[in-house]
Amino acid sequence: MQHTSEALRLEGKRIAFVPTMGFFHEGHLGLIRKAKEIADVCVTSLFINPTQFAPNEDFTHYPRDTARDMQLAEVSGCDYFFNPSSEDMYPHRFATSIIVEKLDSILEGQVRPTHFRGVTTVVAKLFNIVRPHCAIFGQKDFQQLVILKRMVQDLNMNIDIIAAPIARDADGLAMSSRNTYLSADERRTALSLSRSLLSAKTAFEDGERNPMLLQEIIRRKLDEAGIYKVDYIAVVDSETLETLETTIERQDAVIALAVRIGRTRLIDNMILKDSD
Amino acid sequence: MQHTSEALRLEGKRIAFVPTMGFFHEGHLGLIRKAKEIADVCVTSLFINPTQFAPNEDFTHYPRDTARDMQLAEVSGCDYFFNPSSEDMYPHRFATSIIVEKLDSILEGQVRPTHFRGVTTVVAKLFNIVRPHCAIFGQKDFQQLVILKRMVQDLNMNIDIIAAPIARDADGLAMSSRNTYLSADERRTALSLSRSLLSAKTAFEDGERNPMLLQEIIRRKLDEAGIYKVDYIAVVDSETLETLETTIERQDAVIALAVRIGRTRLIDNMILKDSD
Repeated sequence: MQHTSEALRLEGKRIAFVPTMGFFHEGHLGLIRKAKEIADVCVTSLFINPTQFAPNEDFTHYPRDTARDMQLAEVSGCDYFFNPSSEDMYPHRFATSIIVEKLDSILEGQVRPTHFRGVTTVVAKLFNIVRPHCAIFGQKDFQQLVILKRMVQDLNMNIDIIAAPIARDADGLAMSSRNTYLSADERRTALSLSRSLLSAKTAFEDGERNPMLLQEIIRRKLDEAGIYKVDYIAVVDSETLETLETTIERQDAVIALAVRIGRTRLIDNMILKDSD
Repeated sequence: MQHTSEALRLEGKRIAFVPTMGFFHEGHLGLIRKAKEIADVCVTSLFINPTQFAPNEDFTHYPRDTARDMQLAEVSGCDYFFNPSSEDMYPHRFATSIIVEKLDSILEGQVRPTHFRGVTTVVAKLFNIVRPHCAIFGQKDFQQLVILKRMVQDLNMNIDIIAAPIARDADGLAMSSRNTYLSADERRTALSLSRSLLSAKTAFEDGERNPMLLQEIIRRKLDEAGIYKVDYIAVVDSETLETLETTIERQDAVIALAVRIGRTRLIDNMILKDSD
């Protein structure tokens, strides 16, 4: 792959990269189509990265269908499909990690303390192998986006990190490979995630600037839906991830949440922006 | 610099890189000459990296003479001299570190626990800015060499790490910018470093394979010279840095030491290799 990419660069081709863990839904395919739109060559990787899962998490059960993914990637415009093995990525004596301090220990990092170290390390490896000019990530993992932008800037990687809007089912549920874990009942319950975020967003657009009140709107809606296992509901600065506690002054805030429904952990978020 | 390097790569030029902290001696200039020999373009950086010094170390007193360094680099064949500021390298909100576990906490790492994290992070940044095909480092910092090779391999950086032999004064003292701290008396005392290593090496070549006995040869010589502040004397595998405790079986071992003479900390090492 590295050889191919270096040759493409020497030909002056612009490479867009979509790193994934596979089991594609419309969200992934949208990233691939966007990549093909903005560059000459689209590279997609499929690697279910063991180091970003904690021992108690769903690595072994994470859904897989590589043959289908390859086909879907191709029809969506992917030129190169990179699918390394764990042994290729983490050979004997592997010892290196990249950490992005502070940003990696809040929100998701509080519940998943080693998660982002796994993400930044594997993404840096993939970047060095694929040598893209730009890489596209979904806004759904918005903390991941912030951390990867930080890493790229701090380490002087010459790569544009591009955020793509969250892809949602018609009823509003944010697409996720993990939605496959949900029973029909649980899926119905999960609709309260996007609906509660939308209520808060509407309140914001109507002028509500108190983060605590916006969080309260969400908490009540989740409660009504019977979701009591809430890891966090947070209103944060979209660049620094600093919690906004008293008022939302800047226009780029994000309201984010993580909950558990049955055995499944789901996240969702919305950008709070004045529509002027 | 990044822009220049990308343009050079597109022209098909091979870039060799010599990262330094300046105050050049013959060792540095040898690296620059070697770079120019093996590549089309030699890039030298001068950056006294604050993050690899502990608060109690000699960052503020580290010797500096940038004008002289630039001149010496140029006459030695350097094509591009990269001299960024600390503010350029570590802007506000900088938060990313690269760690190479285990290797970074032994030998030098025991005495300087945050040193290698500073080195790996700044070298990765410089690599991403300079985008070299190969980079040349002196064998004097042999643990640094091992750690950087590990990082480059682990993170799939497509860069050859090349080791250059230790440059020594005529009397055997390993060249170091820190030698400038030594008084005439201390410098005389410091000669026992290379001499004791040479005695151990001679014993090895005469068939001595017991690491403990080789270390003992050195300790005795240092003792005779009045050097009592010994951070370590170690016989290690030259790739894994594992301490060889009972016997030297492989041919690539290194014997290394670190001592303090007055207020100056000095290191030196020799490769143990059968001369067949």
